[in-house]
Amino acid sequence: MKTMNVGIIGYQFMGKAHSNGWIKAPLFFDLNIKPELKVACGRNKSAVKAFADKWGWQEVKTDWKKVVENPDVDIIDISLPQHLHYDVAIAAAKNGKHIFCEKPMAHSRKQAEEMLKVAEDNGVLHYLNHNYRRTPAVLLAKQLIDEGKIGRIFHWRGAYQQDWIVDPNFPLTWQLQKETAHAGPHWDLNSHSVDLALFLMGDIKTVSCLTTNFIKERPLPSEGATAFSSGTEANTEMGQVTVEDAALMMVEFESGAVGSFEATRFATGRKNSNTFEIYGSKGSVAFNMERMNELQYFTNDDPDNAQGFRTIMATESSHAYVSHWWPPGHIIGYEHGFVHAMADFMMALDKKEKIFPNFNDGVKILAVLESGLESAKFGEKVKVV
Amino acid sequence: MKTMNVGIIGYQFMGKAHSNGWIKAPLFFDLNIKPELKVACGRNKSAVKAFADKWGWQEVKTDWKKVVENPDVDIIDISLPQHLHYDVAIAAAKNGKHIFCEKPMAHSRKQAEEMLKVAEDNGVLHYLNHNYRRTPAVLLAKQLIDEGKIGRIFHWRGAYQQDWIVDPNFPLTWQLQKETAHAGPHWDLNSHSVDLALFLMGDIKTVSCLTTNFIKERPLPSEGATAFSSGTEANTEMGQVTVEDAALMMVEFESGAVGSFEATRFATGRKNSNTFEIYGSKGSVAFNMERMNELQYFTNDDPDNAQGFRTIMATESSHAYVSHWWPPGHIIGYEHGFVHAMADFMMALDKKEKIFPNFNDGVKILAVLESGLESAKFGEKVKVV
Amino acid sequence: MKTMNVGIIGYQFMGKAHSNGWIKAPLFFDLNIKPELKVACGRNKSAVKAFADKWGWQEVKTDWKKVVENPDVDIIDISLPQHLHYDVAIAAAKNGKHIFCEKPMAHSRKQAEEMLKVAEDNGVLHYLNHNYRRTPAVLLAKQLIDEGKIGRIFHWRGAYQQDWIVDPNFPLTWQLQKETAHAGPHWDLNSHSVDLALFLMGDIKTVSCLTTNFIKERPLPSEGATAFSSGTEANTEMGQVTVEDAALMMVEFESGAVGSFEATRFATGRKNSNTFEIYGSKGSVAFNMERMNELQYFTNDDPDNAQGFRTIMATESSHAYVSHWWPPGHIIGYEHGFVHAMADFMMALDKKEKIFPNFNDGVKILAVLESGLESAKFGEKVKVV
Amino acid sequence: MKTMNVGIIGYQFMGKAHSNGWIKAPLFFDLNIKPELKVACGRNKSAVKAFADKWGWQEVKTDWKKVVENPDVDIIDISLPQHLHYDVAIAAAKNGKHIFCEKPMAHSRKQAEEMLKVAEDNGVLHYLNHNYRRTPAVLLAKQLIDEGKIGRIFHWRGAYQQDWIVDPNFPLTWQLQKETAHAGPHWDLNSHSVDLALFLMGDIKTVSCLTTNFIKERPLPSEGATAFSSGTEANTEMGQVTVEDAALMMVEFESGAVGSFEATRFATGRKNSNTFEIYGSKGSVAFNMERMNELQYFTNDDPDNAQGFRTIMATESSHAYVSHWWPPGHIIGYEHGFVHAMADFMMALDKKEKIFPNFNDGVKILAVLESGLESAKFGEKVKVV
Repeated sequence: MKTMNVGIIGYQFMGKAHSNGWIKAPLFFDLNIKPELKVACGRNKSAVKAFADKWGWQEVKTDWKKVVENPDVDIIDISLPQHLHYDVAIAAAKNGKHIFCEKPMAHSRKQAEEMLKVAEDNGVLHYLNHNYRRTPAVLLAKQLIDEGKIGRIFHWRGAYQQDWIVDPNFPLTWQLQKETAHAGPHWDLNSHSVDLALFLMGDIKTVSCLTTNFIKERPLPSEGATAFSSGTEANTEMGQVTVEDAALMMVEFESGAVGSFEATRFATGRKNSNTFEIYGSKGSVAFNMERMNELQYFTNDDPDNAQGFRTIMATESSHAYVSHWWPPGHIIGYEHGFVHAMADFMMALDKKEKIFPNFNDGVKILAVLESGLESAKFGEKVKVV
Repeated sequence: MKTMNVGIIGYQFMGKAHSNGWIKAPLFFDLNIKPELKVACGRNKSAVKAFADKWGWQEVKTDWKKVVENPDVDIIDISLPQHLHYDVAIAAAKNGKHIFCEKPMAHSRKQAEEMLKVAEDNGVLHYLNHNYRRTPAVLLAKQLIDEGKIGRIFHWRGAYQQDWIVDPNFPLTWQLQKETAHAGPHWDLNSHSVDLALFLMGDIKTVSCLTTNFIKERPLPSEGATAFSSGTEANTEMGQVTVEDAALMMVEFESGAVGSFEATRFATGRKNSNTFEIYGSKGSVAFNMERMNELQYFTNDDPDNAQGFRTIMATESSHAYVSHWWPPGHIIGYEHGFVHAMADFMMALDKKEKIFPNFNDGVKILAVLESGLESAKFGEKVKVV
Repeated sequence: MKTMNVGIIGYQFMGKAHSNGWIKAPLFFDLNIKPELKVACGRNKSAVKAFADKWGWQEVKTDWKKVVENPDVDIIDISLPQHLHYDVAIAAAKNGKHIFCEKPMAHSRKQAEEMLKVAEDNGVLHYLNHNYRRTPAVLLAKQLIDEGKIGRIFHWRGAYQQDWIVDPNFPLTWQLQKETAHAGPHWDLNSHSVDLALFLMGDIKTVSCLTTNFIKERPLPSEGATAFSSGTEANTEMGQVTVEDAALMMVEFESGAVGSFEATRFATGRKNSNTFEIYGSKGSVAFNMERMNELQYFTNDDPDNAQGFRTIMATESSHAYVSHWWPPGHIIGYEHGFVHAMADFMMALDKKEKIFPNFNDGVKILAVLESGLESAKFGEKVKVV
Repeated sequence: MKTMNVGIIGYQFMGKAHSNGWIKAPLFFDLNIKPELKVACGRNKSAVKAFADKWGWQEVKTDWKKVVENPDVDIIDISLPQHLHYDVAIAAAKNGKHIFCEKPMAHSRKQAEEMLKVAEDNGVLHYLNHNYRRTPAVLLAKQLIDEGKIGRIFHWRGAYQQDWIVDPNFPLTWQLQKETAHAGPHWDLNSHSVDLALFLMGDIKTVSCLTTNFIKERPLPSEGATAFSSGTEANTEMGQVTVEDAALMMVEFESGAVGSFEATRFATGRKNSNTFEIYGSKGSVAFNMERMNELQYFTNDDPDNAQGFRTIMATESSHAYVSHWWPPGHIIGYEHGFVHAMADFMMALDKKEKIFPNFNDGVKILAVLESGLESAKFGEKVKVV
């Protein structure tokens, strides 16, 4: 069987999710090209070595440039914090590597445009991992919209709510600093929501945005602090939080629909609540990532006395990807979206076709998000250009 | 037993809900002063006569001035469309009548301020019927907040969604015209949501608002068309819709919390979906009027492995008003909020105390809504002054 | 307008629910015959007087025989504990009074058969108040079944769960003694569930039943103890609980379907959880009285990829009774089933038609329940004859 | 790293789920002994070869005896239909192989007892794969019970509902014939439910059972028919269904609690609805496998006005197994229970400890199920001995 070699850069949460994806994709999907876990790269040698041993990456590097220049590597998997995406992606593309890139894409629309241009100029496949698109229930929503079952769409109502920094003693990790994260949940979470909105609703014309900070100073991170847990020991030195804690948006779509977004890390009790509602002239859908196997669907076509939101278990073989997994009612989980992405990525390579979302979508997403930050600064509605 | 005489002006949907309230309040509550259903007033004599016969109103009038000037009448119940509230309320107050007024209060903050002033100057009791405040589950949310169970509040996320004008053939009723309704769901529905937000969250400092129209022309109403159904025969003559179809808001509260509102008549499948979520540092609550006997509540105080949103059935005798009704688990409905309002109104009269929300709250609500319309016009954040 | 006089016997929980029903029925329904609240009867004179004053019953009696013999009374409303139903109903029928009787009907199938016979012989209208039948969502289930939307029915799965005697200090009220209650939840709750099952599924052929007692002794009731709350002071004297605490049944229907029932007062957290699920060859329905405005409905007719249980809000004007109440999405509550019953009762009197469920249904219900008690005694399946 | 060699017998649905489990266990858990996918066995050589190639099994056999006698094999994974479990397990144990066995364990309690004896006599590890026990939410229920949070338990209410043979044209697969399946959902599904009940509630004392057949004849299977789909072409020859279509049970537990079970393949709309409710003196829990990341929990300890069933997302690192997977709110799926089982199996081998459930549990489960079949035959309550 034909194989292609993957070099992964980054080995934290996303390194784990991606490794699992590369391993499982050829097991559950019939792929003409099989990914080989060739080389893993990270700055901490012993840590990346342990990671590679665990997951079966054949080699280990500490300098990402060595990986993107390695002629044996066909695919660069960018599993890094976003401030590093730009440099790695540009170098990877220039070296003719196909790119599987984590989100959010970059720190600015301008960076994203360059990444897109260089990737296109070098003819490499580029993919931006907004993994939620590849949830069967989300794809069912897309199908219902495309089939006209929702009719003319009036409303998008989305929210991405988490609560992991409600505690004021949660430390000032890289996610809370502008240099490394560019923005807070507006970048991290709204990028997902905007991706889904563009996918399901079409382009966005104007943005009004409101951002705020609830906790302005936090203890500097101690050793061992990670994105989702404070370190072992309290640190008494404080630092400024330089990204927003919450971001709300109201938008107008090109289609005439209106939409609202809400991204926050302060919604106590919501762990990974990525939800949307779409209302149209013929029907409506609603989705919640915490119950990702279900789609709520309402249709005017039902008889007058028997209308209601139905809970579709998107676990039938008629739903996207499901035939590769388990029988009806046997649910899949968070990690499966990654496996779908890896499988589609390998199939796109095989067929020499594009895959979505890609850097072009990333540019659009960042255009909306940047307009949002500008709007929030001046308290004015901003046109997305 | 002491009684006071009620004169009701208006006999449509609200006339029915109010009549039921005046009748049931003394049956289920121990009132020192009992309301008498004295006189019903409406322009169509035979219709108002049928209404009065049905509900037991002792007299019938077609001129509201006769009612507000009638020395036998103690209480004026304003169950009219909102463009008529101002005139009737001013006259009622000047005649020393206590006022039970439907919402939204008036067409402008200026009108509302005058209504408040005249009512206060004449020493009459004034009540504005934002009935949802008197839902046991909403009052439980208020109690949890007041007891500090929610902690410092970060977020309000509210929406009031209906779908009764999705059909483009739905006629141009009075609710869809600026002269009679002043605005669309922003006035009708957001007034309820803003009332709840002010009640639960405190004052609002700034508003950013977006309004839109999905359907700009509609058939003129045929005979028999009402607020919730098109008439028996189609009318081919068209007229302009002069109020918005949907209104979104983002707000900053004085407390530092942020909030979002969404009011629409185009959310297919949502009939009377009046929902809110409140997130704080110690806990959160969520409410949906379609399941008005339930409150969702999350608290950080629960052990780490046993946290979750709990569905509280607000049907225990420890919940507000419930001891007057049925045993635990035996739910109440939409109409009960009215009964609570009538009972509280009569008790306030007896104790010579204020009742809430009143015209002062109405002024605040309209100040927010007016700022919203101004914001929508210019696409700018507006300070509520 | 024509009127008929009601004499109510009993003034506790059911007295309140019934009074409210008699008052509201003519307000919300167009009745040709209006019920007059003529006389209220109870053994405690001052208590029944207070009740009558509150609800507008014109006269008061302490001897029920005086009421059933009163020529001015047309309708006897039996709101008594069940051990008194038999005597009152027989006397009422012999005096030519129409009978509105609370459930469970009596203490034995034999009593019920006599009550039926005497009522029929005397040509009076008889109604047995299994009020849950008159819930719009339940009637929608019935309609879907009758229209063939559920197809051939395979399964009934019902449960009626409460938790009001989990506390071992809850006193030995009349509901926990065989002389006054005949049985425990099997009589009180399973009678409701069996009524719904017979209504929706047809006759029951065999019964297997299991009953148990979790708490065998309880403190004797102190003054002021009622069905739903222990009295003000603990009583240290203990007495035997002589009815079961929980009753489970498995049944075979005449149709070939099978069913399960579960009635308990020991389901901690369930207050009035009266639920059923019905599964058929074409579709299914599920209902929960705590969300009585909703019906869950699944149909095989939906496209393969869009099947799911839909939550129908049974609050549309196309649903039974709803046009008499409020607009879509504005829910009704527990008490409304009583109002529907009173309205239907008066309409049946006007049209000289039967009303259901009546004493004939009561005989069938008790036949099933009695077979259950027999089955539980011997641990054997029992044929319902 | 130390490794042990697995030989898998069977390569259908369970072969896939098990292969995935053996591969993922060492990736997500820190195992001292790593399973090697040594040999796969099946009667159809080309099919088992394709399976082995896909999943990385190093060798292929068509005669299971060759596998159990192979000195290189340490672990026998029995992924076969249940009528083959007995022979393979006995032979595996006699050859000193550790056994990972699919459920239901065998065709009779007697078989199970022999399997247990031979396994014990030969000192091999034996595990029976009732995978649902290893769901974090189920283990949370167990923990709450063990900590006394539920108090004295009164009720178990379980149901396992599927709908895959509602269509009368669904063919007579091996699951519908007594020779290969011994019984229908009573064996297949009730075995799971009884396992969970024994795990959470303790031993069962008596069983009353009711079984039934809705469809007595079905077309013989055509080529390509599998457990979950009819084959490509209709077969007009009919055969007798020789197992039940649905089985209901009522049980008494040794503890004094009572329980109900319901297993069916005729619950239209329920795909893999494995649910249970447990009610105790201090609290209650409820679980649904279709929302397997959630546990409903009610506690009397909550304040009077704030009690309710809370939806615990069992996705916190404080929940069993979760720290090996993803951050809070990122759900796992059906397959993860298998991975947990494989990991625990390898750890038990390493520590030379027992693992649960094992053949001893299997004996108990079959004792209950056999008593159920006996009860159903005679319509009598049967003591489990």
